[in-house]
Amino acid sequence: MTVLARRAAAEFIGTAFLVMAVVGSGVMASRLSPDDAGLQLLQNSLATGAALVALIVALQPVSASFNPVVTLVERALGMIDNRAAAALIGGQVLGGLAGAVAANLMFGLDAVAFSTHVRTGPALWLGEVIATIGLLVVIFGTVRSGRADRVAFAVGGYITAAYWFTSSTSFANPAVTIARTVTDTFAGIAPASAPAFILAQLLGGAAGYVLVRFLYPPLATPAVVTADRKVLS
Amino acid sequence: MTVLARRAAAEFIGTAFLVMAVVGSGVMASRLSPDDAGLQLLQNSLATGAALVALIVALQPVSASFNPVVTLVERALGMIDNRAAAALIGGQVLGGLAGAVAANLMFGLDAVAFSTHVRTGPALWLGEVIATIGLLVVIFGTVRSGRADRVAFAVGGYITAAYWFTSSTSFANPAVTIARTVTDTFAGIAPASAPAFILAQLLGGAAGYVLVRFLYPPLATPAVVTADRKVLS
Amino acid sequence: MTVLARRAAAEFIGTAFLVMAVVGSGVMASRLSPDDAGLQLLQNSLATGAALVALIVALQPVSASFNPVVTLVERALGMIDNRAAAALIGGQVLGGLAGAVAANLMFGLDAVAFSTHVRTGPALWLGEVIATIGLLVVIFGTVRSGRADRVAFAVGGYITAAYWFTSSTSFANPAVTIARTVTDTFAGIAPASAPAFILAQLLGGAAGYVLVRFLYPPLATPAVVTADRKVLS
Amino acid sequence: MTVLARRAAAEFIGTAFLVMAVVGSGVMASRLSPDDAGLQLLQNSLATGAALVALIVALQPVSASFNPVVTLVERALGMIDNRAAAALIGGQVLGGLAGAVAANLMFGLDAVAFSTHVRTGPALWLGEVIATIGLLVVIFGTVRSGRADRVAFAVGGYITAAYWFTSSTSFANPAVTIARTVTDTFAGIAPASAPAFILAQLLGGAAGYVLVRFLYPPLATPAVVTADRKVLS
Repeated sequence: MTVLARRAAAEFIGTAFLVMAVVGSGVMASRLSPDDAGLQLLQNSLATGAALVALIVALQPVSASFNPVVTLVERALGMIDNRAAAALIGGQVLGGLAGAVAANLMFGLDAVAFSTHVRTGPALWLGEVIATIGLLVVIFGTVRSGRADRVAFAVGGYITAAYWFTSSTSFANPAVTIARTVTDTFAGIAPASAPAFILAQLLGGAAGYVLVRFLYPPLATPAVVTADRKVLS
Repeated sequence: MTVLARRAAAEFIGTAFLVMAVVGSGVMASRLSPDDAGLQLLQNSLATGAALVALIVALQPVSASFNPVVTLVERALGMIDNRAAAALIGGQVLGGLAGAVAANLMFGLDAVAFSTHVRTGPALWLGEVIATIGLLVVIFGTVRSGRADRVAFAVGGYITAAYWFTSSTSFANPAVTIARTVTDTFAGIAPASAPAFILAQLLGGAAGYVLVRFLYPPLATPAVVTADRKVLS
Repeated sequence: MTVLARRAAAEFIGTAFLVMAVVGSGVMASRLSPDDAGLQLLQNSLATGAALVALIVALQPVSASFNPVVTLVERALGMIDNRAAAALIGGQVLGGLAGAVAANLMFGLDAVAFSTHVRTGPALWLGEVIATIGLLVVIFGTVRSGRADRVAFAVGGYITAAYWFTSSTSFANPAVTIARTVTDTFAGIAPASAPAFILAQLLGGAAGYVLVRFLYPPLATPAVVTADRKVLS
Repeated sequence: MTVLARRAAAEFIGTAFLVMAVVGSGVMASRLSPDDAGLQLLQNSLATGAALVALIVALQPVSASFNPVVTLVERALGMIDNRAAAALIGGQVLGGLAGAVAANLMFGLDAVAFSTHVRTGPALWLGEVIATIGLLVVIFGTVRSGRADRVAFAVGGYITAAYWFTSSTSFANPAVTIARTVTDTFAGIAPASAPAFILAQLLGGAAGYVLVRFLYPPLATPAVVTADRKVLS
């Protein structure tokens, strides 16, 4: 119980700071660089990626998924049980909302304001599917090959890039998507646009799960995983 | 004695270079990119984060807190005694001032010029509280789980991000706040604004201390800390 | 067979995401920052470098060359056999094309559109030769000194830089060059310009191979490789 | 002999690519972002820092100082002998010049063109002294505490930052300074300005040497160096 509470708290804190990074840097960027949307996204993406490195390094020994899709895949892989999954996802969703509120308040805005930023259409949904597949390959490829200590850098790098190379700017996270509905700022998403984004993320999660199982089969066959062509001649 | 003097010197040097990075890059940014405040903050934040990586890596084996709040939390956690805390904080405050003077001189400005940049109000103070809480979670989460060698990257990432996601641009450091009063440039803070910033940082420090103790209890119960759900299926 | 299929799949996935990062971030950059080509290249280069860190960390235990020149040098060094080289290069070329198509679709463009961006002339070809030499020194210098776990950071850093310091913006990769012919966007290259680029990359590959053999002779003489002047006085 | 030749070659290659990164990215930046000098410096500084990470990771097992001041301090610390120091510095100076020529040619410029960019005055010289002191603390603080594997990240971070926080944009390297006299581009320095820059670098080198000896005494007293306050409570 105590351990699980601590893990859920870590997910709450981490997701709160992650959403603060996403939302807060978006507000700052749009205020300070009003004339160039690309510069705003650069600021937003670098702040998010840098925050992820810090938060994952700091919280990983407790719990540092910050993302219900990741937690669901951990459940599907048998890494956690149902009760843990529910607690962690609860922490993520509540933490994300708290982070959005905190960001709003830090910038002198109403605590809650629903976003009017409509994000919709097949191109963006495809972006979310691909973004989530990539995120899962990056996380579980790193973890399942026994290098969990690299996840922070891999995820920080991936998200920084995926802001740019996916048309949806890579939400790839249902908890963060929900949180971004309650801020009417740069990073916001209209509540009506959120369900399709989350559905696309879940689809990407399922596809990513299959891909991870194929690329990194269980360690029961470690010879496959550790087969490393990097033998020196 | 010799060891403590060396540590205090490392705090002096490190904080001096940290403040040089903050103040100097602010001057360079405002001179070279006068038309876009967001671009200036991007330059300022990347320079500060990159400098922190370097300084913490280089000085950590001696002493690399560069921040009285961090040193106070180390004292509260019993990691250092009162005498060491006083010496380290002394090094930090003096080093910060020396760094501000050096930055002013490098850019051909008066050695000391009090800032006229007023930074005040509840939104900014909330920013400082949150910035400091996050910084402590990042530092002590990393250290208390036995991965002090990652602190440089975690703190560099965190501060780069926090410049953007907190409304106050994340001073989060009383020694740096004091130092930034003596430069009338981009990164300056009016002396009258400093006390409330420092108070907010101390409040954040207290809250962060409680959070760290909850998330990372003493290693006397290592099973809790090392409980890692990342078991491979 | 299963292992080789998995490796080829990893090359397919990794090269697809690499090309998505290159092409997709180019589209996003040119749409959001239409007025400054340098800002576009900054966004493009940071996204590419960050993606490379993530993809190499995640896929390296399976296969993470994403580049036929690298695979050919691995073959020349006796690290893989002909059959593996063919499979990996096949995965890279097909993956790259798939990534370009995916990027086009994510941004609402035709799945395939040949680039009209002519890139030609001795200055650019020299850029490709030098870019490829440097890439091979970075990869094999790191691998052959027994630090393959650093390749992700070294390659991510190198490519981010080489976008800027080579006149050709450092394609340095035949699979990526081919893929970039089928997108008529920022990162595209006209099909007629591709052969000379690929020839320059192969020339750079040969020169890089010679340089790597000279700097890092076989580990049969480990004393040479591990001779480290960093003895502490 | 063979080993020393290999080391000198590594210094040649590494310094050549470092200067290509500095000069080439400066040309690209000034061509693509002609309207904002700060954006140019951002591009230039990120490219240089990223290149340094790659080059040091790749070449460090052979030799990766790329800087006569660093080599001289290694000599003063007894890490290398006179013959090695001379060979390494020779490689650095020649490699730097080759890199400047290569950068000029890649961008379609004359192979050699003396810079007309005058950089002079006490403020800039102070910048060079401070930049070099910091560089030495970063390098030798990291190396002398037994963490040479972190030097690449520390130096990459430091130089990225020091471009911004020193008024001189942190040359901090006589070989690079000499090389930058033969390119009449963004990163160039007029030959008449070079001697004072190099003198300031040597002064900073001497001061940095003293500081390093104080902060990190010889490992003969390892208790001092490894005294780590990071005991967990």
